[in-house]
Amino acid sequence: MRIGIVNPNTTLEFTASLRNTLRQVAESGTELLVTNPARGVASVESFAEEAVAALGVMAAVRQLETEGADAYVVACFGDTGVQPAREIVGGPVVGMTEAALHAASIISERFSIVTLPRRTLAHAERVVRHLGLAHRCTVYAVDVPVLALMEDDTGPVEEAIAQAAHHALVHDHAEAIILGCAGLSDMVASLSARLGVPVIDGVAVGLKTAEGLVSAGLKTSKKSSYARPPSLLDLSAWPSQALPSEI
Amino acid sequence: MRIGIVNPNTTLEFTASLRNTLRQVAESGTELLVTNPARGVASVESFAEEAVAALGVMAAVRQLETEGADAYVVACFGDTGVQPAREIVGGPVVGMTEAALHAASIISERFSIVTLPRRTLAHAERVVRHLGLAHRCTVYAVDVPVLALMEDDTGPVEEAIAQAAHHALVHDHAEAIILGCAGLSDMVASLSARLGVPVIDGVAVGLKTAEGLVSAGLKTSKKSSYARPPSLLDLSAWPSQALPSEI
Amino acid sequence: MRIGIVNPNTTLEFTASLRNTLRQVAESGTELLVTNPARGVASVESFAEEAVAALGVMAAVRQLETEGADAYVVACFGDTGVQPAREIVGGPVVGMTEAALHAASIISERFSIVTLPRRTLAHAERVVRHLGLAHRCTVYAVDVPVLALMEDDTGPVEEAIAQAAHHALVHDHAEAIILGCAGLSDMVASLSARLGVPVIDGVAVGLKTAEGLVSAGLKTSKKSSYARPPSLLDLSAWPSQALPSEI
Amino acid sequence: MRIGIVNPNTTLEFTASLRNTLRQVAESGTELLVTNPARGVASVESFAEEAVAALGVMAAVRQLETEGADAYVVACFGDTGVQPAREIVGGPVVGMTEAALHAASIISERFSIVTLPRRTLAHAERVVRHLGLAHRCTVYAVDVPVLALMEDDTGPVEEAIAQAAHHALVHDHAEAIILGCAGLSDMVASLSARLGVPVIDGVAVGLKTAEGLVSAGLKTSKKSSYARPPSLLDLSAWPSQALPSEI
Amino acid sequence: MRIGIVNPNTTLEFTASLRNTLRQVAESGTELLVTNPARGVASVESFAEEAVAALGVMAAVRQLETEGADAYVVACFGDTGVQPAREIVGGPVVGMTEAALHAASIISERFSIVTLPRRTLAHAERVVRHLGLAHRCTVYAVDVPVLALMEDDTGPVEEAIAQAAHHALVHDHAEAIILGCAGLSDMVASLSARLGVPVIDGVAVGLKTAEGLVSAGLKTSKKSSYARPPSLLDLSAWPSQALPSEI
Amino acid sequence: MRIGIVNPNTTLEFTASLRNTLRQVAESGTELLVTNPARGVASVESFAEEAVAALGVMAAVRQLETEGADAYVVACFGDTGVQPAREIVGGPVVGMTEAALHAASIISERFSIVTLPRRTLAHAERVVRHLGLAHRCTVYAVDVPVLALMEDDTGPVEEAIAQAAHHALVHDHAEAIILGCAGLSDMVASLSARLGVPVIDGVAVGLKTAEGLVSAGLKTSKKSSYARPPSLLDLSAWPSQALPSEI
Repeated sequence: MRIGIVNPNTTLEFTASLRNTLRQVAESGTELLVTNPARGVASVESFAEEAVAALGVMAAVRQLETEGADAYVVACFGDTGVQPAREIVGGPVVGMTEAALHAASIISERFSIVTLPRRTLAHAERVVRHLGLAHRCTVYAVDVPVLALMEDDTGPVEEAIAQAAHHALVHDHAEAIILGCAGLSDMVASLSARLGVPVIDGVAVGLKTAEGLVSAGLKTSKKSSYARPPSLLDLSAWPSQALPSEI
Repeated sequence: MRIGIVNPNTTLEFTASLRNTLRQVAESGTELLVTNPARGVASVESFAEEAVAALGVMAAVRQLETEGADAYVVACFGDTGVQPAREIVGGPVVGMTEAALHAASIISERFSIVTLPRRTLAHAERVVRHLGLAHRCTVYAVDVPVLALMEDDTGPVEEAIAQAAHHALVHDHAEAIILGCAGLSDMVASLSARLGVPVIDGVAVGLKTAEGLVSAGLKTSKKSSYARPPSLLDLSAWPSQALPSEI
Repeated sequence: MRIGIVNPNTTLEFTASLRNTLRQVAESGTELLVTNPARGVASVESFAEEAVAALGVMAAVRQLETEGADAYVVACFGDTGVQPAREIVGGPVVGMTEAALHAASIISERFSIVTLPRRTLAHAERVVRHLGLAHRCTVYAVDVPVLALMEDDTGPVEEAIAQAAHHALVHDHAEAIILGCAGLSDMVASLSARLGVPVIDGVAVGLKTAEGLVSAGLKTSKKSSYARPPSLLDLSAWPSQALPSEI
Repeated sequence: MRIGIVNPNTTLEFTASLRNTLRQVAESGTELLVTNPARGVASVESFAEEAVAALGVMAAVRQLETEGADAYVVACFGDTGVQPAREIVGGPVVGMTEAALHAASIISERFSIVTLPRRTLAHAERVVRHLGLAHRCTVYAVDVPVLALMEDDTGPVEEAIAQAAHHALVHDHAEAIILGCAGLSDMVASLSARLGVPVIDGVAVGLKTAEGLVSAGLKTSKKSSYARPPSLLDLSAWPSQALPSEI
Repeated sequence: MRIGIVNPNTTLEFTASLRNTLRQVAESGTELLVTNPARGVASVESFAEEAVAALGVMAAVRQLETEGADAYVVACFGDTGVQPAREIVGGPVVGMTEAALHAASIISERFSIVTLPRRTLAHAERVVRHLGLAHRCTVYAVDVPVLALMEDDTGPVEEAIAQAAHHALVHDHAEAIILGCAGLSDMVASLSARLGVPVIDGVAVGLKTAEGLVSAGLKTSKKSSYARPPSLLDLSAWPSQALPSEI
Repeated sequence: MRIGIVNPNTTLEFTASLRNTLRQVAESGTELLVTNPARGVASVESFAEEAVAALGVMAAVRQLETEGADAYVVACFGDTGVQPAREIVGGPVVGMTEAALHAASIISERFSIVTLPRRTLAHAERVVRHLGLAHRCTVYAVDVPVLALMEDDTGPVEEAIAQAAHHALVHDHAEAIILGCAGLSDMVASLSARLGVPVIDGVAVGLKTAEGLVSAGLKTSKKSSYARPPSLLDLSAWPSQALPSEI
């Protein structure tokens, strides 16, 4: 099967890192079509940036459908553009946040998200509440910008995340931690070892969820909320950009 | 004071109708700056159309702020683009849906929304849940497209709305009705007379809310969620279009 | 238009202060009819005092309606007597707590109330829950009696409020603060400057809400919950007392 | 022990009927002190009537405490005046609505209230929500005034209640029915036989709850919400009236 | 009347202690039938132990019904086996947790549970949420095993409970404390004196609730959820063991 | 990888049918270890039967872990025994109900469960509420016993399910249907074609979820709620029975 992976921001390094992470957990029969918008925002850290990035997500899934994608993963915490994307295409569209929350709810009773930067707390909670998990999930943020993850030394970010997660383990009785950004996959192993609880990367479980839905023959319901949009939408201003294989 | 009124769709007739409605309820000292995006969607009836329209709303409030607007009303049920717009400008941004729900919660114990078309039920409920009013508000939809309101005879639409509202009065014990579309202002008087309960047009109460917040000296908190976006957003592809005074 | 302002307690100084605050935010065409019960409680700081004050509120709005009031504001945190008052008169009755919460929900994502004294926490939360905003609003109390606001130096009270508010900003990520007492209007400017976020006085926004509802032509629904009471209520034991203009 | 029973309205026939019902379920060692306000409302069917009746409840429990009452039952659906009464006296104050809901939650998974008249739906739901049982309890109302229960033939009222209850059993999967008025005790046996499910009279279970709390040595917490009111309340205008033994 | 008391674990000392506690609060006409499973777990501190103990509870109530029990109290925090037991017998089955929560909701506005050990937090919260009281109740745990209550000196456990309770009083504004284990009855008096608020033992109020329901003539609804199980269940592997009178 | 599949009832035909369904959706590298308790109940249709079956589930996963299972699927609607099973073993334990709800929440906005028989409505809702999805999911039941699915002609059952599902599509605006029993897998294709919306079998998506969690390297958190039980549990009375390959 073919799974389209959409990084909603324009930062190629994130997209490349995403592909590398996902290749390790993809089934052998899964082909990954990894892409990001060629135009938009370098990272998604506000409602306004979400709005811009959503157009890119919509254009990307439309393009990926023409390339034969069976399902889609949107790799941005907060699940930017997931609802409109579900209207645009036929195959299921999985947000990394919802996938992470589902996994956490199976392997633990209570869990916490550690996201970044602080101003996006409301974005994470929007997903938590849409899924109804506010009684089992608390949300923390460390106040560093997403692009700090592009720096050579991400040690300080990891330290800040570990401290917030530790606080959640002790004070909220969290039993698992969800990493609240698509760019944190590399920290899963070390944080899990340090914290002694499962640490969940929504990107990885998002791919597994997408593969599972395709395998089970499930597609987005087109009955009402996610029916194709009634008007033809011109998204030509938001071209998507397949990740070159040589990166 | 100056209040910017944003119709998120590109249909000038709606914008003109909006201005006519609002002139009747505006304070004498209020100047209305009425606008819509020059590019986007003719009506907002899906998540994807919301995503496109949100860009127009963001560009419109940015432009209106340069023209001296003190506050803004977004005249689209579902409050399309309200959250990102709050980041873009300093003055308060009021969604017609939230304003209508606030008014209903003061003049009645229970109330119902009648929106259109059916696929946008989830949009109305998103606002109801964000405000926390699901225990007091039910949502209905009549299944006609928004552009049916452009036709000469809107009688059948009004009849369908009246029937849905009547059902809510009897079965949900609703005591007030919220009209779930910016294009229904002309029906307020006749529906209210027919139903025997207050009928609320979010456009009108949205304007009053905006005027009130300005008068009370309140602006959007810039502390975190609605701080200015961290990056400079290029919204030039979404020019807004002030309503010509001769229409 | 005429707006009736009801201070539910018998302390004239509060009523006079209320009038002074509201004159500054009232529209030029708004006449304020400011009153309090001649008999009752000097302040409202318990359920029992609320019960006594509610009778005064009911008698006051009945009297104000005969004087031509178009709408009413009840200036007591907890919205004492608002529901019964809605039955007694035809025009909309606005509680200062609900008005403050509505304003806060538009200008911020999360917000906190700082009320007093501590035993009234449950009163504030009753309104928060009736409006459904518990997921966005936390409630704090400083443990000083209301009548401490009558003292010459209210500095210590303001300091205590500022500390509680600061705690809410840091720990609950509040982005706006609601002052939980009608007697705190004078602290709005200094607290707002000190805290760096909007500080909301429910009295002021209550008046703007009342004006807006009148302007939009909305009255209390008389369909069921707020229909006139079935029996004639003798409220003669609770005479109201218009504020003399010379105070 | 001595249990004070307060009928919040002024209708002696209700008070007498209440006593007769409760004598049958009281423990042998329980002395019932049955009373109602001498002044107030003939029945409680609106928020305004609740406000008037609450003063009577407060005065009644204060009087009953001087007569040695160990606990109190307020026999009015909606639990009128229960919260302020808890402040006034030391012994536990039990509302018939909360007691009925507790009993229902033990003997069934889902249950429904059938109250009267229709305008009091919001009163019943206020208690349901304060207890948090909205996910297990639905509320119905038959639209007859409370004083219809004083008529010779209450058959039509019982028929209307039976029909509403039957609807709840079929459509909401209710497994028990709560009678939403203190004047319906006589219908328990026939309705229970007819409906085939437990029918709960809050007056009876309210007494048992009060007896149980006394027996377990529990009193109202005076720590904060229900501490004695800070000011001395003059309730002399609301004398209570012990039921003469000869009625 | 006869009330069956079921200790779900196999530790006779607990059962004996339970009987001693309950004899002091039982009505004079109440005969206590006190029992525990002869086979199962020494204490219930995990979901798996709950599952084993539930079988013992089911067998015990079946046996007690043959001995003429009119109602049943399950004396294990978390209300292990209460739902299946309701199907097995006709008389009402009361869990100590729900009874304690009901009592707390009458004598206070907010309250907290202090349970043990920490891993059972989710068990307590399951009951809190099933009753809908999460908005009024917080849950704490001290991390000692239940069998520590068998030791000679339970002082350290009581100290830990007092500290957790004190934290709840200060930080959550709790006004009453629920002891979250059936083996803590002996601490009620000293903790209550020390904390200055009511301390609730679910075992005692559970018995009073059971007596009250029998006295009010209420039995478990057999309409649907708690109808007798459709198949004959072989519970012979879980014999129950009446407490010898000489212990 | 090896996935243990547990049918909690003793009916071999169900277990065989389960295996046949799952073989079609399993990854090529997945080995299915399919089992059911040798002792217990023929079907799970009540709380008491759930309690008995839970012991069988616990014994089964313990046995399957010794056989090298990496994860487990419990194939009984209501997720019988899932929580205790999570304590017993290290690999993730997936309930078919939670897996179905997760899938539904991704491919639709609103959805409904159609379960059987009617008395198990509360079991389905227990899972819906534990996941927090009550605002998006309604539950229906058709009143036929589970063992009716063993009959030659299951047409009448399918017809009843289709009618309940159709009701949900029209009245609750459901956009997907979850089949509320492990024995309904064969109806997915025909119901989906008839209803025009996705029909979800929790057994299939449960397997996909289990595979995905293993592939993503996630195991049950052993920090607190699901730590190994503190005592050694004797489950020898509940031997499990691997499905013979020749069936």
